[in-house]
Amino acid sequence: MTETAPRPTLEAVAALAGVSRATVSRVVNGGAGVREQLVERVRRAVEQLGYVPNQAARSLVTRRHDAVAVVIAEPETRVFADPFFALQLRGISKELTEHDCQLVLLLTEGRDDHARVARYLAGGHVDGALVFSLHLDDPLPRLIRGAGVPTVFGGRPGWGNGARGTTPTLYVDSDNRGGARDAVRHLVGLGRTRVAHITGPLDQTSAVDRLDGYRDVMEDADPRLVVEGDFTPAGGERAVRQLLDRCPDLDAVFAANDLSASGALRALRAAGRRVPEDVAVVGFDDMLPVAEQTDPPLTTVRQDTEEMGRLMAGLLLRGRGRRGGGRQAGEDAEGTPSGVVLPTKLVRRVSA
Amino acid sequence: MTETAPRPTLEAVAALAGVSRATVSRVVNGGAGVREQLVERVRRAVEQLGYVPNQAARSLVTRRHDAVAVVIAEPETRVFADPFFALQLRGISKELTEHDCQLVLLLTEGRDDHARVARYLAGGHVDGALVFSLHLDDPLPRLIRGAGVPTVFGGRPGWGNGARGTTPTLYVDSDNRGGARDAVRHLVGLGRTRVAHITGPLDQTSAVDRLDGYRDVMEDADPRLVVEGDFTPAGGERAVRQLLDRCPDLDAVFAANDLSASGALRALRAAGRRVPEDVAVVGFDDMLPVAEQTDPPLTTVRQDTEEMGRLMAGLLLRGRGRRGGGRQAGEDAEGTPSGVVLPTKLVRRVSA
Repeated sequence: MTETAPRPTLEAVAALAGVSRATVSRVVNGGAGVREQLVERVRRAVEQLGYVPNQAARSLVTRRHDAVAVVIAEPETRVFADPFFALQLRGISKELTEHDCQLVLLLTEGRDDHARVARYLAGGHVDGALVFSLHLDDPLPRLIRGAGVPTVFGGRPGWGNGARGTTPTLYVDSDNRGGARDAVRHLVGLGRTRVAHITGPLDQTSAVDRLDGYRDVMEDADPRLVVEGDFTPAGGERAVRQLLDRCPDLDAVFAANDLSASGALRALRAAGRRVPEDVAVVGFDDMLPVAEQTDPPLTTVRQDTEEMGRLMAGLLLRGRGRRGGGRQAGEDAEGTPSGVVLPTKLVRRVSA
Repeated sequence: MTETAPRPTLEAVAALAGVSRATVSRVVNGGAGVREQLVERVRRAVEQLGYVPNQAARSLVTRRHDAVAVVIAEPETRVFADPFFALQLRGISKELTEHDCQLVLLLTEGRDDHARVARYLAGGHVDGALVFSLHLDDPLPRLIRGAGVPTVFGGRPGWGNGARGTTPTLYVDSDNRGGARDAVRHLVGLGRTRVAHITGPLDQTSAVDRLDGYRDVMEDADPRLVVEGDFTPAGGERAVRQLLDRCPDLDAVFAANDLSASGALRALRAAGRRVPEDVAVVGFDDMLPVAEQTDPPLTTVRQDTEEMGRLMAGLLLRGRGRRGGGRQAGEDAEGTPSGVVLPTKLVRRVSA
C-alpha cells in the first residue's frame, strides 16, 4: 500500500475477518468481551489491510503504547521526600499529556528491584524510558540497555569517556559546574575567605560537577573545608557540625542543594552562628517553597528543573517518531553521552 | 488437580506436546526462536497439566504481568503535595515488592486524562489496579470497569446502595465516622460548646463520613459552624476566616484532615486566638511530621494510612490468585461495596 492509497475502512476489516462491524470496533478498542479467537482474526485483518482508524488500532499495527516509563534510581521514600523529583515529574507529565501519552512511574524499594524494573521495560508496556538520579555503581543503565527501549537520561551519565558504544546516549542536564562556580565566586566577592562546601553524594555526576565548580574557584582551599553530604536536610546538619568541629573559623558554606542548605542553616543557628553575618550560605536548585521559607531566605543557584523534565520527555517523544527505522533515541545506553545542558542563574535572597 | 497431587514435570509437558525438553524450556522462557505452532502446542500442554515451573511459565498460563497499577484520581501536583498519598504508596510498594510485583503509578494532569489511564489498564500491561481518591462524579470507576482488570479501591466508593452489580467491589477504608465522633466527643468533653467543622471536599466519601460523625455528636449545632474545605492548608485558612466571620464565638474546630488543621492553626494565630485556650483544634490522619510540627502540636485522629495501602495491595494480589477461574477481585467495579474498615484512634498533643 502506498501513501496515497485510500485508507481501508472498518467495513473492509469486518468483511475480511468475517465478523460484524461492532466486533471490529470492540477489538480495536481493547477487545473486552470478545473471544480470543475472534480477537486474533480481527487483528490479522487489521494488519493485512494496514487499517489505522485510531489510537488503539495504531497500537496494534505499530506496537506503540503511547506510554512512557519514568524510572528514578532512588527508593520511593526519597522520591516523595525530595521536591526535586516532583518538579521534574511535573515537567515530564505536562509534556507527555500534551502528546496524549501516559506517564508510567515505576517505583521501587531500592536497587535490588532494578532488575524487575528492567523486566517491565522489556515487556512491551512502554515506548521508552526516562531515567534519572543514576548512581555510578548502579546496574540500572546496563539493565535498561538490555531491555532494548529508547532512553533519555536526566543528568549526565557517569560512564563518560569510557563509553565504547556507537550511538550517543541522550541526556538533559543543568550547568552544574558553572552554577557552582557562580555560587562560590559570589561568596568570595562578599569577602569570605574560608568557604566550605557540603557536597551531594559523590557517586552522582551532579554532585561531582558541583564540587569541581567549587574547586575551580577555591583552588588552594583547605581540604577539610569539603564534607560529603547526601542532598538531605539531615545530611546538611551533620555536615555543618563536622565542619564547625574541623574548621571553626569558616565564614561561608556552599551547599550542593537547597535541602542540605536548609539543614546547614538549622545547624548553624543551633551553634549560635548568625547567617549571613558570621557565616554566609548559598544553596543550589532554587527549590520553592523551600528556598524562600528557610530562616533566613536562601541565596541559591536556580536550575529549571521542570523544564529539564519537559525536555527529556520531548527528546524521547521525538526519538519515538523514528521507531521502526533509523536509530532509536539512546538505544545503546552506554553510548557516548550527548546532552542538552541548561544554564543556571544565581538568585540572591538574604543568606549570602 | 488437587492441592496434594505431585507437580507435573517439564518432561511430562514435553511428552504431551510431542516436542523436546529444550523446546518446552524455550517456550516457557519466552518462546524466542520457536515456531508459533509449537509455542501454541506447548502452551496447551502446559495449561492442560497445570505446569507452573517459574515466573515466565506462570505468565504464559495466567497472562500475569507481575505488575499492579496505582491510580490516584487527583492531578500529579496534588499527589506530590499531600503526604497522605506518599504514605499509602509506601504501604502498597512494600507489599508489592514482597511479592516481586512492580508498582506502576499512572500519573495524570487531571480528570480529562482518565480515559487514557483506562486505555492503559485495558492494554494488558498490569494484573490489576489500586484506585484511590475517587470523587463522586468522576467517570473513572466506569472506565476502569470497561478496562476489565481486577480492582481494589482505597476508600469506600460512593455509589453505595444504588449498585446493581452482583460482584462485590472490594475496598479498604478507615472508620472515618467513628474517628470523627471521637474527635468531637473529645472537644465536648473539654467543655467546648461551639464546635466548628472544616469538612473535606464533599464529593469524597471520607469527607462525607467525617461530617456524619461530627453531626452524630453535634445534632443541634448551628449549621453555620460547618464550612467546606478541600483537605489543603490554604483551604483550612480560608475556612477559619469564614468561620470567625460568621461565628466569632466559636471555641473549637474539628478539621477533616491534618493539612487543613495546619492552615486553621495559622489563621487562628493570625486572628489573635490562642490555641487551645481560646479555640481547641483537632485534626484527622496523624500525618507525620505535619501533626507534630504544627504550632502548637496537633491533637488528631490517627488512621493507619500505610497499612491501608498494604491491605489494598494484599487483597488485590490474593484476588489475582483466583484469575482464570472463579470471581475476580472487583471485576464489576460498581458491584456492592464490600470493605475492610480499619479502626482509628485519638492522639492527644497540645492543640485540644
